[in-house]
Amino acid sequence: MSKKVKTFRPKARRPKGFEDRFGTLANAENALIGAAAGVYASHGFEPLSTSALEYADCLGKFLPDDDRPNEGVFAFTDDDQQWMALRYDLTAPLARFVAENYDPLPKPLRRFAVGPVWRNEKPGPGRFREFIQVDADTIGAPGPAADAEMIMLAADVMDAAGLARGEYVIRVNNRKLLDAILGNIGVPDTEEGAVQRLRVLRAIDKLDRLGADGVARLLGDGRKDDSGDFTKGAGLSAQGIVAVLGYTQAGADTLEATLGALQPLMGASTVGAQGVEELRAIAALLQACGYDDGRTLIDPSIVRGLGYYTGPVFEADLRIETVNEKGEPARFGSAGGGGRYDDLIARFRGQPVPATGFSFGVSRFAAALHALGRLGPVEPGPVVVLALEVDRMADYFAMASELRAAGMRSEVYMGGSGMKAQMKYADKRGAPAVVIVGEDERAANSVTVKNLVLGDKLSGQIEDNKEWRSGRPAQTSGPREQLLKLVQDALI
Amino acid sequence: MSKKVKTFRPKARRPKGFEDRFGTLANAENALIGAAAGVYASHGFEPLSTSALEYADCLGKFLPDDDRPNEGVFAFTDDDQQWMALRYDLTAPLARFVAENYDPLPKPLRRFAVGPVWRNEKPGPGRFREFIQVDADTIGAPGPAADAEMIMLAADVMDAAGLARGEYVIRVNNRKLLDAILGNIGVPDTEEGAVQRLRVLRAIDKLDRLGADGVARLLGDGRKDDSGDFTKGAGLSAQGIVAVLGYTQAGADTLEATLGALQPLMGASTVGAQGVEELRAIAALLQACGYDDGRTLIDPSIVRGLGYYTGPVFEADLRIETVNEKGEPARFGSAGGGGRYDDLIARFRGQPVPATGFSFGVSRFAAALHALGRLGPVEPGPVVVLALEVDRMADYFAMASELRAAGMRSEVYMGGSGMKAQMKYADKRGAPAVVIVGEDERAANSVTVKNLVLGDKLSGQIEDNKEWRSGRPAQTSGPREQLLKLVQDALI
Repeated sequence: MSKKVKTFRPKARRPKGFEDRFGTLANAENALIGAAAGVYASHGFEPLSTSALEYADCLGKFLPDDDRPNEGVFAFTDDDQQWMALRYDLTAPLARFVAENYDPLPKPLRRFAVGPVWRNEKPGPGRFREFIQVDADTIGAPGPAADAEMIMLAADVMDAAGLARGEYVIRVNNRKLLDAILGNIGVPDTEEGAVQRLRVLRAIDKLDRLGADGVARLLGDGRKDDSGDFTKGAGLSAQGIVAVLGYTQAGADTLEATLGALQPLMGASTVGAQGVEELRAIAALLQACGYDDGRTLIDPSIVRGLGYYTGPVFEADLRIETVNEKGEPARFGSAGGGGRYDDLIARFRGQPVPATGFSFGVSRFAAALHALGRLGPVEPGPVVVLALEVDRMADYFAMASELRAAGMRSEVYMGGSGMKAQMKYADKRGAPAVVIVGEDERAANSVTVKNLVLGDKLSGQIEDNKEWRSGRPAQTSGPREQLLKLVQDALI
Repeated sequence: MSKKVKTFRPKARRPKGFEDRFGTLANAENALIGAAAGVYASHGFEPLSTSALEYADCLGKFLPDDDRPNEGVFAFTDDDQQWMALRYDLTAPLARFVAENYDPLPKPLRRFAVGPVWRNEKPGPGRFREFIQVDADTIGAPGPAADAEMIMLAADVMDAAGLARGEYVIRVNNRKLLDAILGNIGVPDTEEGAVQRLRVLRAIDKLDRLGADGVARLLGDGRKDDSGDFTKGAGLSAQGIVAVLGYTQAGADTLEATLGALQPLMGASTVGAQGVEELRAIAALLQACGYDDGRTLIDPSIVRGLGYYTGPVFEADLRIETVNEKGEPARFGSAGGGGRYDDLIARFRGQPVPATGFSFGVSRFAAALHALGRLGPVEPGPVVVLALEVDRMADYFAMASELRAAGMRSEVYMGGSGMKAQMKYADKRGAPAVVIVGEDERAANSVTVKNLVLGDKLSGQIEDNKEWRSGRPAQTSGPREQLLKLVQDALI
């Protein structure tokens, strides 16, 4: 007898902008996480888990879309009236952790982290409000070699995730170059200048989606989108817009050509010259380590949206075509990114701590592989032991246990239905075989093993009578003691 | 040149009641998650990831501590004014998922899930507001065999987590027995009766902490704790209190003795008789499958705190002594639990869907193993390639890469300090060896490999001069091409 069900009946509904991942997609996500974490661990990074919630002032305000409610984060007040927020990335919590535990930690600190992050975005197609990131960061590493390492790690992660050469590229740029350009066109080094610079960053970050015309508007007075919403622009002069757009388009076919085109754009700026030198040093390391084989590219149009970067930035772009929610061909875009953020820990400590990192966005990546049909069944279905006599469950458990001991996924049917429904269930689970012990088998101390894969073939595809005859039977019986061998033989 | 650091300086602080896990502890947590997930997957369970946030009405109110603010959950309103909450377990989101996607799912549905859950508790020692659970559930499985399977899974997970026989026990009970007792002493089958039953559950759930006297108070008028806080009681009569306490103490040495003691306590209750029969069926299966070897036990004092259980309940208890925050010996308590919840999906669908599951609490478990010193270094430290000449970084990267290709964790020193600091760093990271290529080695095309483990021994422990002489040297040099062999030899 079950307790009375209350009359209030909530509607079962997934929150808007969130996802459920079941079976293949969840397995794929886990496999990608494992691949990335394996790369990081092999490079000497140690795992760190921090909580999903942080005090909002510790996270800071660095999101590209701070025109959203709560400035893009999910936030609320705790019992003691302090504002708490769900982390929007894994870097801001790392900065908090490092600042809080600075002295005892090894320097440099090499840590990787895996976990969901949350963005309070307006839900829409392809916009997830929760997604999993797998990050690696080196804290206390001042030189361009640390940035180069991150870029090579990004490529290693893409390789480990199963992408072939030519299917991705890591694009590299340096925020200092844009700082120089903006300095040259008169954006002041003040609070207002900082706001203007952030608007410029966000405008460039939309190049891919809006094209040069749309970005030009965002660099100038502003832009009205298709829905009529107006986004205020950065307020650059016409000359400034030309300078910024020209800079983003300075990428050339070869490394030397790109660096050659960028150099003169820096004018007399020391920061700019330093930025170009850093890019040159990074490129030289990538070349020396063999990562200049199309896997990496200097690309001035890459700026990354997050506000905290101070130097080199990079982005892992997928070059394979994918499909959108409507099944139309679509560009996948960024599968991850990162950069140098020497000032993020300084927010707490007052003095800069050099830091650089890469973040791999697992959820969108898995979804894209899924849409492309590139996720095989990561796990085979279980061998299902049918439950035909309710008082023989212990026998069935023993059989499933024997199969598991030999490394086979296996389970006993746990529902309350008859044989036909049990066979349907096994089919739906992708079971390679079922084990049948009914009254007859039990009396004869035997088992019947039915190969469902072969059974499918026999009933659906084979029309040639000869092939039918020569094929192995889809069902075999034998002594109970030989269960394992019977199943193994059936699955060869 | 880095951007100006703003003058507002937040204090870096971990939120109260939350934890950071770095290195060994995080590795241990991941290993435990992998062990449990492996057990579940081998039994035919498929992974499901749902979002951390759910609509509050979908989660329902089943927490044992609903006298807390927001009834024990972290909640806030979304843009559209709907209440959202961080999940307090992985079962309520599963019920939502099943109800929302009922028709296409296989029946029974066997799913496992891994992830953090959140409880808005008053922070205090040993009370975490976020912890990781690894759950397995079978939905659409009506019989006691499904409960027995969950109990055996619980034992398999404890085994996989590295516990020895005798170090844990899975205690099994059935909510129907308490329902019968409460019916017999006149608790009515009304809304008020439901509130009273819940108070009784929570009182019994504290047996371990408060003892029989404290629980008796909670079953009666109420109890004032050491801090002076008063908890309202269930309002049972003196006779009722005796009946309930007597029931919880009916556990005996043997299964038959326990069932024999419980039977008469049920009186004429059909629910009670049914509950005892279910326990008998479960116990018979555990026995037939060999899980009655001390790993499982019928124990009427186990009720579990969550409000949604309707039948069998079980709890995985650690029997090893651990230490608390102050280093004092302490009972660890529950490392997980579960039970049958046939009405949870009915909240949405209106008709019962039989379901049973087990939840493994990874975070507390890992913390306990850590406190006991039972977590070895899960990963060895990386071999550190020293960075002695700033313009030779590509060489160092190539060396680390060669070692990784042979399956060795390896990294290049990424900080900005000199050789002494680099050696200190390698020590702190637990590096088994460092690779040294300074100016001399480079000129001779050779490498030096220093074994840090042996070096420690030589300088610290070995006093016998003969042993010193016969020991391998802590440092060897050889041709650059033989880097891998030199490191391998050094680490034998």
